[in-house]
Amino acid sequence: MAKELKDLTKRSENYSQWYDDLVIKADLAERSAVRGCMVIKPYGYAIWEKMQHELDRMFKETGHQNAYFPLLIPKSFLSKEAEHVEGFAKECAVVTHHRLMNSPDGNGVVVDPESKLEEELIIRPTSETIIWNTYRGWINSYRDLPILINQWANVMRWEMRTRMFLRTAEFLWQEGHTAHATREEALEEVLRMLNIYNDFAHNYMALPVIKGVKSPNERFAGALDTYTIEAMMQDGKALQAGTSHFLGQNFAKAFDVTFINKENKPELVWATSWGVSTRLMGALIMSHSDDNGLVLPPHLAPIQCVIVPIYKNSEQLAQITEHVEPIVKELRALGVSVKYDNAENRRPGFKFADYELKGVPVRLAIGARDIENGTVELMRRDTLEKQVEPLEGIAQYVKGLLEEIQNNIYQKALRRRNEMIREVNSYDEFKVEIEKGGFLLCHWDGTPETEEKIKAETKATIRCIPLDGDKTPGLCMVTGKPSKQRVIFARSY
Amino acid sequence: MAKELKDLTKRSENYSQWYDDLVIKADLAERSAVRGCMVIKPYGYAIWEKMQHELDRMFKETGHQNAYFPLLIPKSFLSKEAEHVEGFAKECAVVTHHRLMNSPDGNGVVVDPESKLEEELIIRPTSETIIWNTYRGWINSYRDLPILINQWANVMRWEMRTRMFLRTAEFLWQEGHTAHATREEALEEVLRMLNIYNDFAHNYMALPVIKGVKSPNERFAGALDTYTIEAMMQDGKALQAGTSHFLGQNFAKAFDVTFINKENKPELVWATSWGVSTRLMGALIMSHSDDNGLVLPPHLAPIQCVIVPIYKNSEQLAQITEHVEPIVKELRALGVSVKYDNAENRRPGFKFADYELKGVPVRLAIGARDIENGTVELMRRDTLEKQVEPLEGIAQYVKGLLEEIQNNIYQKALRRRNEMIREVNSYDEFKVEIEKGGFLLCHWDGTPETEEKIKAETKATIRCIPLDGDKTPGLCMVTGKPSKQRVIFARSY
Repeated sequence: MAKELKDLTKRSENYSQWYDDLVIKADLAERSAVRGCMVIKPYGYAIWEKMQHELDRMFKETGHQNAYFPLLIPKSFLSKEAEHVEGFAKECAVVTHHRLMNSPDGNGVVVDPESKLEEELIIRPTSETIIWNTYRGWINSYRDLPILINQWANVMRWEMRTRMFLRTAEFLWQEGHTAHATREEALEEVLRMLNIYNDFAHNYMALPVIKGVKSPNERFAGALDTYTIEAMMQDGKALQAGTSHFLGQNFAKAFDVTFINKENKPELVWATSWGVSTRLMGALIMSHSDDNGLVLPPHLAPIQCVIVPIYKNSEQLAQITEHVEPIVKELRALGVSVKYDNAENRRPGFKFADYELKGVPVRLAIGARDIENGTVELMRRDTLEKQVEPLEGIAQYVKGLLEEIQNNIYQKALRRRNEMIREVNSYDEFKVEIEKGGFLLCHWDGTPETEEKIKAETKATIRCIPLDGDKTPGLCMVTGKPSKQRVIFARSY
Repeated sequence: MAKELKDLTKRSENYSQWYDDLVIKADLAERSAVRGCMVIKPYGYAIWEKMQHELDRMFKETGHQNAYFPLLIPKSFLSKEAEHVEGFAKECAVVTHHRLMNSPDGNGVVVDPESKLEEELIIRPTSETIIWNTYRGWINSYRDLPILINQWANVMRWEMRTRMFLRTAEFLWQEGHTAHATREEALEEVLRMLNIYNDFAHNYMALPVIKGVKSPNERFAGALDTYTIEAMMQDGKALQAGTSHFLGQNFAKAFDVTFINKENKPELVWATSWGVSTRLMGALIMSHSDDNGLVLPPHLAPIQCVIVPIYKNSEQLAQITEHVEPIVKELRALGVSVKYDNAENRRPGFKFADYELKGVPVRLAIGARDIENGTVELMRRDTLEKQVEPLEGIAQYVKGLLEEIQNNIYQKALRRRNEMIREVNSYDEFKVEIEKGGFLLCHWDGTPETEEKIKAETKATIRCIPLDGDKTPGLCMVTGKPSKQRVIFARSY
């Protein structure tokens, strides 16, 4: 067994260490020399590119266009929306100078004090302010609306405790920013994008999520409502996988963006924003992977099928290659991304372990005996089961199997997640159950005070007020006051 | 005629103003609230996305993978390669703090002095330093080489004079960074990427470029050699469209990156880097466009064909739409991106002017009379010629015409460029000719001193020492000293 595989911590021993090990050993990312920032390695980036590709297509199919706004935001812009600056001021990277000079002592370079900026610039933690300042120039009449724009970008939030993909100072994301003539239209957009995130999570990430709305405490800074999709990791902790914000007219007010409506009267513009980030990589890793490494859903796997030849000499290799080439061609024609790994400097056992670690959904191994028998050994990464299949028709078989694996990974995650959801009816019970992890469905009186008390005492927060499911009213588990419906509590990433 | 079109300055009146007008009026980009930074609007970004798509494919077909490295670079990293820091220190955006706080006077927010960083961080002007610091951990033996990585990213250079797309403080680009075991392999990579840029310019941008090597004065800071593709704009000024650098072992030395070679001895790694940026947008605009607006080569046009219905009432519109729908379908099936603009709030004349301004290569106009006659009016943007074509088979005709237009735009740019190249044999003649613009082929003695004198006296620089063409030696036009071959001088963007 390969060295890397042996070194992977088991989930049961230390889940957190298992995650950190896996990110490194599967070549997804590594820590950089800059505090809190990571390097996304080619294999990790290839998965992110697949996510981007599908999301970008879904955005465009619903009428959105991409654009690009500046990285830097004047400090004064942040202050214009009171809650917004409150939410982001404590984690801003601030640019104060624009030049270096040779150090007077001859050692390297120092900041040139003469190059101090008149107004400091902030590296965008999110782009509402610079975008709404721009939209002011784009919007005059109701005919200019809606504006449906998305941006793929890097952003920076100076977090004190960071973890690769889950919480990094710099991260990659997309941020949609739309402008509408009416409240209804904006709300429709908020839910449209929430549903796109939901579909993406289910169909590509094989990730069951719960759609809901955030409690006021957990809202985006500056939003009237934040909608979310919430996922459950294997260790019983929740992960917020995507958010869609109803911003009302807050940013239009802060940046003076009005339009002339059909009745020829000026009105403030309605706004939404929505985003997902490289955090999704963390969700993907933690939802499906096991003690042998990554398990990737085929719809996001950079390599869906790897073929490894087993040979004793170059003659055998040539013979195997001759049989493999048409299979590779056929798989490609079927839209399957396939790699034939005939590298001679690594032994089959090493390759097997490495592709297991990297989560390649299907592995085919072909030796001289297989060629004689017209068979191939197939291993599914999701179940680790080996089976022998006829060589004839193997491409079609793999194509179908990938869909089966995609579905199986989803069903497995769904079963696990569902087992982790339970109703809790008293605060005493809650304090016991929260230690076991999972989503706890509880009655809550709707006040920030009760939510804060629960958080302070148990580290659990309201993940969301679910949109679907049981809406029976009840009594708050803490205060006994009326509750409109059960909400979801969990500890979270 | 539409208002926007009327306001476009003529090239002959003021070429520079024409460019600035066009960028704004064709909805490509606009200045932002942040000094020197632009907003790339959806139509401009869609062209950039098409460029990205083709380049990314070409990079991947030649074995490169994408990855992502941090935005911020520790100040000390920049100093490690002496020439590199010399080249970039004067235009660095410097992050010095990581937190804002409420202003003690109650007005907005100020930088929290307690949040000063121990070491300042620089927003990457280019990523050689952070990447080679990372490569040190990835490279042990010759088996780890080559590393062929590309990054799509934003970078920042605090330029004092900026122009949209051509020179902005923040710009978008791709930067390739490769590591090799031998000098020969690295040089091969440098030329491979130069040729990819050359092919992209020719086949997609319809832009004739000259491949060459830079004189020492014009090299990338830290490179042993910089290869370039040089383009000629309509006003006689040159534009550097892409560069590919042979970095030798400079960055390996600065960041201590060695590998164990096949003879089991440690050796410094060989490096290349190469990049093109949103500057290409400027080149595209200035090469082909005219006094009516943008002219886009079909291979990069977000909309290749627009169809405008001409109708008097909704009955006629319905009838036209019935005939247009199958044509739209057929065009899409042929891979043509088509827009049917049946918006009722804009008149045909306005639409015509707008699509001309936006450079849509083919416009079809269909009225009730056309339906009767089985014809359609077609306008080519490159020649502004109108022609009447049979409706039957129109999709196939447009498909073929787009290729003809692509080629015609290229041939036109090539003719214009070739007319602007001339041999100059004396410095007196040079001083006259340089005022007329264009590429001047001259003998030069190969010294930085002579090059600097010419630059100081005429504002012209050596654009490149061409790789192809006449290599006859001669005598320097300034000093009379021996010259190995003619080099290309021009004033440039």
